[in-house]
Amino acid sequence: MINRLIENIKKTQAPIVAGLDPMLSYIPGYIKQKAYEEYGETLSGAAEAIWQFNKGIIDAVYELIPAVKPQIAMYEQFGVPGVAAFKQTVDYCKEKGLVVIGDAKRGDIGSTSAAYAAGHIGKVEVGSESYYPFNEDFITVNPYLGSDGINPFISVCEQEKKGIFVLVKTSNPSSGEFQDKPVEGRPLYEYVAEKVNEWGSTLMGNGYSYVGAVVGATYPEMGKCLRKIMPKAYILVPGYGAQGGKGSDLAGFFNEDGLGAIINSSRGIIAAYKQEKYGKFGEEGYADASRQAVLDMKEDINNALNG
Amino acid sequence: MINRLIENIKKTQAPIVAGLDPMLSYIPGYIKQKAYEEYGETLSGAAEAIWQFNKGIIDAVYELIPAVKPQIAMYEQFGVPGVAAFKQTVDYCKEKGLVVIGDAKRGDIGSTSAAYAAGHIGKVEVGSESYYPFNEDFITVNPYLGSDGINPFISVCEQEKKGIFVLVKTSNPSSGEFQDKPVEGRPLYEYVAEKVNEWGSTLMGNGYSYVGAVVGATYPEMGKCLRKIMPKAYILVPGYGAQGGKGSDLAGFFNEDGLGAIINSSRGIIAAYKQEKYGKFGEEGYADASRQAVLDMKEDINNALNG
Repeated sequence: MINRLIENIKKTQAPIVAGLDPMLSYIPGYIKQKAYEEYGETLSGAAEAIWQFNKGIIDAVYELIPAVKPQIAMYEQFGVPGVAAFKQTVDYCKEKGLVVIGDAKRGDIGSTSAAYAAGHIGKVEVGSESYYPFNEDFITVNPYLGSDGINPFISVCEQEKKGIFVLVKTSNPSSGEFQDKPVEGRPLYEYVAEKVNEWGSTLMGNGYSYVGAVVGATYPEMGKCLRKIMPKAYILVPGYGAQGGKGSDLAGFFNEDGLGAIINSSRGIIAAYKQEKYGKFGEEGYADASRQAVLDMKEDINNALNG
Repeated sequence: MINRLIENIKKTQAPIVAGLDPMLSYIPGYIKQKAYEEYGETLSGAAEAIWQFNKGIIDAVYELIPAVKPQIAMYEQFGVPGVAAFKQTVDYCKEKGLVVIGDAKRGDIGSTSAAYAAGHIGKVEVGSESYYPFNEDFITVNPYLGSDGINPFISVCEQEKKGIFVLVKTSNPSSGEFQDKPVEGRPLYEYVAEKVNEWGSTLMGNGYSYVGAVVGATYPEMGKCLRKIMPKAYILVPGYGAQGGKGSDLAGFFNEDGLGAIINSSRGIIAAYKQEKYGKFGEEGYADASRQAVLDMKEDINNALNG
């Protein structure tokens, strides 16, 4: 799947992932109204609004980008109907040829991590049948529990040719509270990065590993350093746009082959119509505003990489 | 909710939480067969088998224990129907008066943690209505992203009088890989424990905080030390039984008031009938075997505490 991600990136010339993290406040009123008329102001109504909103955006941008990253928390918050909308979104994105990165940040001990791995990127057996319950292509994972929390994901990656992105240095302001603590002469995140390199060493696609890393755009100097520690890891970079990361911060996340990083924008793409810059699109044109935001982001990043 | 947990512990005289972590291999054949006859060998069939299995155990043990801890991974692995079985289990346990600790180990950055908090222990608004989507009483959370990943959970705890258990030192063999790394002269888990103490200091019930910690039974010496660092935190202790923790390891997790810790057993209770010791109950008597395992665990722990 890392190979397909790279193919998609080359084809679109856009190392961009659209974060499908819908909040109800991002969704145009007319979409919510229609959903509530059909399902009431219920969890199912919210889930329907999210799905219709996503579908509009996916239809407008799928040819321009290689991948999407739905944040499962934004669906899970609406209970079982929300989780169903997550699944519907994953399926539709895959139909459209997009690589789907499930942003779930799961991580637990052995058999429990194995259950998350099976449910999200692998398959489960029920009697004599087997199913791919959520069927994402990649999933983000939390390393705090150590190797025996990560290894079950790696086994599934190997079987299914899928991938993971391990949290190394997150984009949020307080990420340093634990991640930056000095451990044996270097920050903890560097130590985690060394582990990522080790975990991924036997799981190689063409030039890059099935085991990637999450490093926030908001920490460009650390990104440059982590790029060198994990030369074969694809880096998923959140924090561009709304969180403050700029195109000019991103060059250090990439390798000399122009590959090795994929930049996420969520609000900046899916709620673009709410920005003054894209105000002319209006609510009804929210999906076209998202499309324009993708084109602008692509230009910003490519200028930074070629500049 | 911490007050209600403590009341339930006093009432039952059992600082025990039953981990409702069903694997299909634990479920008696006759329950699976009936579920598959009704729903086929599908994700819905698996979810129905899990629910019926849980219901049997809950009915047999609810008067003996204060709380249950369903591990959401074991449900999520069966996709949307699995998540629905999780919800059904939570609701039924609450009907029976049990405190429900959702073992979700969620953790993300600001607005995303807020979504998890709202979905699991808080409420969401849809139009003019509001809902408690999963409605657990406590949830386990992962601290790797730092304070701004934890604070949204704390806000919801404050509003809803609910609680969290923060992963400090997990029970698995490789937990030390990151958690034990020396940070400013002490292991990282001690530093996290200091933060737990700080996060919980303003959120106090009667004697104990709404912010608790997870510390594995498999590390009793660390438990003793962490007990002192976090005197007001309830400690959720996994790893008893199947993972190797013994009653005699547990005394140090408790305070002198006999409170402050609650011991989890999953397989040891829910799959008791598979042990030689409880073999006489047979498949049909699986719930009675679970009941007997709870009684034996209660005796083991109380002997250790009073010994």
